[in-house]
Amino acid sequence: MPKLICQEATKFKKCIEAITNLVEEGVFKFRQDGLYFKATDPSQIAMIEFIMPKDAFEVYEFENQNAGIDLRYFLQILSRARAKEKLILELSESTLHITFSNKTKRTFKIPLLDIAAQELPDPKIEFTAKAKLNAGLIQDALKDASLITTHVLITLNPEGLTISANSNKGETSTFCSKENLAMLETNSQAVAMFPLDYLQNILKAAPADSEITLSLATDAPLKVAFSLNQAKVVYYLAPRIEG
Amino acid sequence: MPKLICQEATKFKKCIEAITNLVEEGVFKFRQDGLYFKATDPSQIAMIEFIMPKDAFEVYEFENQNAGIDLRYFLQILSRARAKEKLILELSESTLHITFSNKTKRTFKIPLLDIAAQELPDPKIEFTAKAKLNAGLIQDALKDASLITTHVLITLNPEGLTISANSNKGETSTFCSKENLAMLETNSQAVAMFPLDYLQNILKAAPADSEITLSLATDAPLKVAFSLNQAKVVYYLAPRIEG
Amino acid sequence: MPKLICQEATKFKKCIEAITNLVEEGVFKFRQDGLYFKATDPSQIAMIEFIMPKDAFEVYEFENQNAGIDLRYFLQILSRARAKEKLILELSESTLHITFSNKTKRTFKIPLLDIAAQELPDPKIEFTAKAKLNAGLIQDALKDASLITTHVLITLNPEGLTISANSNKGETSTFCSKENLAMLETNSQAVAMFPLDYLQNILKAAPADSEITLSLATDAPLKVAFSLNQAKVVYYLAPRIEG
Repeated sequence: MPKLICQEATKFKKCIEAITNLVEEGVFKFRQDGLYFKATDPSQIAMIEFIMPKDAFEVYEFENQNAGIDLRYFLQILSRARAKEKLILELSESTLHITFSNKTKRTFKIPLLDIAAQELPDPKIEFTAKAKLNAGLIQDALKDASLITTHVLITLNPEGLTISANSNKGETSTFCSKENLAMLETNSQAVAMFPLDYLQNILKAAPADSEITLSLATDAPLKVAFSLNQAKVVYYLAPRIEG
Repeated sequence: MPKLICQEATKFKKCIEAITNLVEEGVFKFRQDGLYFKATDPSQIAMIEFIMPKDAFEVYEFENQNAGIDLRYFLQILSRARAKEKLILELSESTLHITFSNKTKRTFKIPLLDIAAQELPDPKIEFTAKAKLNAGLIQDALKDASLITTHVLITLNPEGLTISANSNKGETSTFCSKENLAMLETNSQAVAMFPLDYLQNILKAAPADSEITLSLATDAPLKVAFSLNQAKVVYYLAPRIEG
Repeated sequence: MPKLICQEATKFKKCIEAITNLVEEGVFKFRQDGLYFKATDPSQIAMIEFIMPKDAFEVYEFENQNAGIDLRYFLQILSRARAKEKLILELSESTLHITFSNKTKRTFKIPLLDIAAQELPDPKIEFTAKAKLNAGLIQDALKDASLITTHVLITLNPEGLTISANSNKGETSTFCSKENLAMLETNSQAVAMFPLDYLQNILKAAPADSEITLSLATDAPLKVAFSLNQAKVVYYLAPRIEG
């Protein structure tokens, strides 16, 4: 049976969380060079692209196989991983075998879903501003905003990053100057509004002290990219354009 | 704009908790010598007096201004403070500006409430007994009592402090001898009954290992006083007198 | 008054938890050689036998007395014990006196229940297999199984221990080879099915790193035994036999 072995099951679980925060089921592509996943959320407001290269695994023996997975259920099972357990994934025609192995060997067999992979092109966006910063900074700004309203305005200009929100309950804004950003690339101002709950879900899997990259253009989709162990996660989120 | 700066926003938050445990809205008085708050709870069973002297602040620039505040909302916002952030409060005519400042600058603007300050005289009570002790001791006794009933009897006499409760579910009592009190001043016995939930709310903000002062007289209001960082908090609680 | 003193109230509480996980009320027998408790759960699927020898107590002065106790309520009160507090139990005709003593003395008096002790013979079962292992291993296997279904199959054979479950949601199994068991005694295979919730309740009180003993025979009751501080706890659980 095609097989994949991960040194640390708990780390793999963290990666899968990044996907389940946005979508509930989907098709994993076990390509020769690594594990791929790409899907939009049910309301098509956000898209996730997930790549975990072959090198991230201790053993990786697959040849272009697809597996439709109930992600919530998969995550429930991965959440049973204990520290120091290895993860072994094996694929038979209609079943995914999940094994946690250390002193004991704990195995789950779950049925594959009969769903087709979404064929999604990469969004073509001309980003005009880009910044690198700690995930915790944005996570805090979003929690602040959640006290006020359900949407936030993200602004990047040569001075720095601003995340703001307002409603009849008041206003809030977080400002991070360019000196406190890990990187800032922009000549002009880019500004767009996004739904708070989506942004929170997108950033949920990023550790507070990890570095994320934001790419922005006025009234265009936001791109959020970060690394999780050896996996690369990229999200695109549609802006809310007020009529 | 009149301005106040606190070295540690999280400490200021702890102080405001002591107020919100009893009342939901009220008027802060920014006097020249410090921050004052005094109010009764909605059912007028308890009163809180809060004083935070000018010295407790890094910057304190006010001249006898009042600000009506939705305390629950204020606390929600103060709860967003992170370790090592400074707090800046500024007052414009109808708005309170709350800023947390460290590497980022996070600002909230909330509308002031149009309410009048309560003019409350200090209760005139001739206390006949007084004790100092760890807050945790009473907090434990109150949790014990909550397994039995909704009111507790507090007794101070030359032997020590007793907190007791009884109902058809059984009885409970906590006794702390004068040797285990930090201070005890009384020649006779003072005893009164108080509602458990009020006592629990009053003591909620006191750290378990902090020292509180109880002043008691038979069937008279209880006075509970303690310090929180550099603020002084005093509560008065009406007794329940059985007919 | 007959009296019992425990050096550490919190440890005694742990022991009583092992009982309340299965039954809500019952009769403690204060015999000359120690504290006994034996009861079946309300649906008579499981039985618990609890013995805490006289030696486990600092003071133990009883002479064949019985006390009917509301165990849930008793546990609520024992849960109020703090670190380093002694426990004193005293028995008057209709009341149990529970005292936690350290710097303060906190006393509860609760009414005894007027119930008769169950006279339960020890089950006569010829076990064909026996194993010793860490509680955590089974606790994990049961949590795994709870993702799949409500019953588990326990198998002991000369190779080791297997705990498995299956339903239309998939399958799971935990295998622990004889090398990873602390002890294994069997010549043949013993296998029986048990309700998951009962097993979880039975194992709830056992610390994950404590050693438990399983005794098994095909389609016969399971015996689970472990020590809690100086108390000995034995459970019997009826198998589910599919028609």
